[in-house]
Amino acid sequence: MFQLDPRLASDCVQIGRFPLSLLLLMNDSRFPWCILVPEREGVSEIFQLPEPDRVQLMGEISHLSEVMHQVFGAHKINVASLGNVIPPLHVHVVVRKPGDATWPGPVWGSFPPVPYTPDQLETTRHDLLSALGERARPTP
Amino acid sequence: MFQLDPRLASDCVQIGRFPLSLLLLMNDSRFPWCILVPEREGVSEIFQLPEPDRVQLMGEISHLSEVMHQVFGAHKINVASLGNVIPPLHVHVVVRKPGDATWPGPVWGSFPPVPYTPDQLETTRHDLLSALGERARPTP
Repeated sequence: MFQLDPRLASDCVQIGRFPLSLLLLMNDSRFPWCILVPEREGVSEIFQLPEPDRVQLMGEISHLSEVMHQVFGAHKINVASLGNVIPPLHVHVVVRKPGDATWPGPVWGSFPPVPYTPDQLETTRHDLLSALGERARPTP
Repeated sequence: MFQLDPRLASDCVQIGRFPLSLLLLMNDSRFPWCILVPEREGVSEIFQLPEPDRVQLMGEISHLSEVMHQVFGAHKINVASLGNVIPPLHVHVVVRKPGDATWPGPVWGSFPPVPYTPDQLETTRHDLLSALGERARPTP
């Protein structure tokens, strides 16, 4: 049975669910930064997913990227499946802008994160889920 | 008309071509590191590709990742579309192993690269193209 990795659960807030993937928001207000986690047990590489899941994952990445690009006014979207530290398959989708905390370098390994305030978190969650529409269901 | 970005052309060796994407090998012997460049003009984000191209790109990422995992004995494959410095859409597929030059951190922004010798380059190109089979055609 699929279970969310406790390190992802600790770093992020779960805000919704696509047909394949959980939608997490990294609790780091420096970047609008989501993580898609396919709810499949024992998978750490994209090629280990069956083809229909890979196609679905691409659709979720694309939809989420486009919405984040629009909602947060991105200059560039960074999409990545890394997993060197946390192997279970998860895909980062990050809004990047010139002048952000690590521009133009990558966001990974940049510490410390700056957690959202409760108000910021609620606004970000609301704006994102509203724009994602019916393809992502909110989670409690 | 599609043209390969000159910075990618300078950092990499073009070794093959999938139906959608050019297959480049980063000229950095520290990591087996390929880059897929969809031959589509004016595209910098995955969501800007039409859906059939996105599905094709996912297939090329998956096939290349699986082959590189096997050929180079990866511990983890890193897949990423970043483009903060070079915006035209390109996808990194990188073999990672504990103890490599930047493990467990990301590979981007880690300098200087260590170019292949001509013999190493030929061996790497040959091993990769042989394993990729008919889905990737060699380029001269």
